[in-house]
Amino acid sequence: MDLNELRLKINSIDSQLLPLFIERMNVAADVAEYKAQHSLPVLDKAREAQLLEKIASSVDKDMEKYALALYNTILDLSKTYQSSKLYKDAHISQMISLAKSKKLTALPQTARVACQGVEGAYSQQACKKLFAEPSISFYGSFEEVFNAVNNCECEYGILPIENSIAGSVNKVYDLMKNHQFYIVKSVRLPISHCLLAKKGTKLEDIKEVYSHEQALNQCSNFTQSHDLAAIVCENTAVAATKVANSQRNDIGAICSALCADIYGLEILESNIQNSNHNYTRFICISKEHEIYSDANQISLMMNIPHTPGSLYSVLSRFQSLGLNLLKLESRPIPEREFEFTFYFDVECKKDDNTLYNVCDELRTTFPEFVYLGTYSEVL
Amino acid sequence: MDLNELRLKINSIDSQLLPLFIERMNVAADVAEYKAQHSLPVLDKAREAQLLEKIASSVDKDMEKYALALYNTILDLSKTYQSSKLYKDAHISQMISLAKSKKLTALPQTARVACQGVEGAYSQQACKKLFAEPSISFYGSFEEVFNAVNNCECEYGILPIENSIAGSVNKVYDLMKNHQFYIVKSVRLPISHCLLAKKGTKLEDIKEVYSHEQALNQCSNFTQSHDLAAIVCENTAVAATKVANSQRNDIGAICSALCADIYGLEILESNIQNSNHNYTRFICISKEHEIYSDANQISLMMNIPHTPGSLYSVLSRFQSLGLNLLKLESRPIPEREFEFTFYFDVECKKDDNTLYNVCDELRTTFPEFVYLGTYSEVL
Repeated sequence: MDLNELRLKINSIDSQLLPLFIERMNVAADVAEYKAQHSLPVLDKAREAQLLEKIASSVDKDMEKYALALYNTILDLSKTYQSSKLYKDAHISQMISLAKSKKLTALPQTARVACQGVEGAYSQQACKKLFAEPSISFYGSFEEVFNAVNNCECEYGILPIENSIAGSVNKVYDLMKNHQFYIVKSVRLPISHCLLAKKGTKLEDIKEVYSHEQALNQCSNFTQSHDLAAIVCENTAVAATKVANSQRNDIGAICSALCADIYGLEILESNIQNSNHNYTRFICISKEHEIYSDANQISLMMNIPHTPGSLYSVLSRFQSLGLNLLKLESRPIPEREFEFTFYFDVECKKDDNTLYNVCDELRTTFPEFVYLGTYSEVL
Repeated sequence: MDLNELRLKINSIDSQLLPLFIERMNVAADVAEYKAQHSLPVLDKAREAQLLEKIASSVDKDMEKYALALYNTILDLSKTYQSSKLYKDAHISQMISLAKSKKLTALPQTARVACQGVEGAYSQQACKKLFAEPSISFYGSFEEVFNAVNNCECEYGILPIENSIAGSVNKVYDLMKNHQFYIVKSVRLPISHCLLAKKGTKLEDIKEVYSHEQALNQCSNFTQSHDLAAIVCENTAVAATKVANSQRNDIGAICSALCADIYGLEILESNIQNSNHNYTRFICISKEHEIYSDANQISLMMNIPHTPGSLYSVLSRFQSLGLNLLKLESRPIPEREFEFTFYFDVECKKDDNTLYNVCDELRTTFPEFVYLGTYSEVL
């Protein structure tokens, strides 16, 4: 056969295959509705396994894996379609429509906001990009920021989540599991690191530099080429206070230019980061579930069992809705060797609730599923 | 209709749908072979887009996303099936069959091996799990280990890649891009950290502890509860030498018990890590492409464009072969904000070459695709 004949053949196959698929989706949805009405469990793993076995045995050996892959997809798509019918009024879908009904358009001008570190921290700059007149409280650790929001000391909390060079802030991801909160905004801050020291100090005097772990990573070319020992602090601004309060003249801090004024230090060198494409993304968290009108992404986390295709099957639900995965992060679960908690940032569309129905379905499938919020990013 | 009738209907649909799918796979493979024979480009993105548009327009609006998802899967499966025919003798497939033809069964007993750090490093322990009588050279950085293998100073190099608590060793992942090498083995080492100090020192005297960044992370509960300042060193064993060579009596090192003997230090406290499920995975790299007979996984890396479904489409290729994804790691690309290089560890089956054909296909699709090796893990 020539190319044209082969293509006509494919067209003819598609004109039969597609209607069969649509019919199958509708019949499977009828099955799910029937089960829901008769209080039968919707997901029947044994029946699914049986079906896949039958599929595998009815094709040639070399086609088996492809037929199974096709049917896994068809089953995933069926579940997604069913969830849009079955979970219309379920927990997450309801919670989201309630939050949306408040028609929030912008964060308040003033608010009590928790930041990690001390004055001059990058979190403070991120906070000022979100709130016109924030009343900022500083806390010593990320955990205390979560706590301050949890116990209503502050209405919002600002936490760094990802840097374009150093990658994700693992500690914040790990803490997310232990706290109940919602992400209501995220903000992207360009980072420019400076080397600060006591007034009168010269660059060649410096032997040790203090800073946050990630800032030290981001300036590794500079510290290595100047043979500087790197000492970890909780925060870049804490590093500045250490230098300011120390008697030593051979130490410096890597932090924002802002800290020079605040702590009476001198800028020995500016822009010392390895790359100028250096941004940090912060999340703004709240105890209240707030969704602002420009929200265009949602965040989820769940433990995914280490079995073939588990992660794939979650991604296929987003894929089937034509939604882009904006970020995928995996963190080891300490007590379970090489098992992972996955974090997903997924694009969402204003007037399409199917994704929320899918969340409700995932919630019943993955026991440790957590919906983290619906929000937009401030650039 | 009742449940039984609905199920019979699904069976009847499947008995028509499955043969159509198989026929479509075969006709599409014929198209690909025809194109290859006539030196036409196999992948025709414009035609694919046209097909998807036609599919979308021939179903109801609420079914559009599901029909598109189905056809994206069918197209992916087609490509995987075609690659098993088209890429039978392509670069990676050939390289792998050449390496396998050497029928290597075990790493040599003796070899020149590069490790990072100094004597007593965990890398040394990992090395000794792999080689009976290694001749180990120590290097100051991960980069130097890569270089030592590259310029043939050493035949093998040992590098930590992932810890069950702290997660991936980002620096090693980032360095992989700049060096040409193959992974020939991996090894899993249980980690037990100790606090070491000069003989006669008491725990309450200690003010500062030296160690590698990841070890400090893994012992954060201990250092915080004892109010110890954490100072980053290149390596846990380097931390031990610093303490041994220092005049100060208020510093300690977090490292292996092994270092106590080597550097004449005392163990003040054992097993100080946050979790007892603490393992580190190391890779053993070589300039030669060696595949040992028990190899059961392959590693790949590639830059994936930030467009909907790109990652999904890569995963679907593994999924269609029924292969488990063992590890997925993403690292930011420094000069491209929030774009990522992905690393995949994928299960592979002894006598199935389809995965290697898929690698060859991915290599033509993703310009920065790198095949890292086929190997097994020593527990």
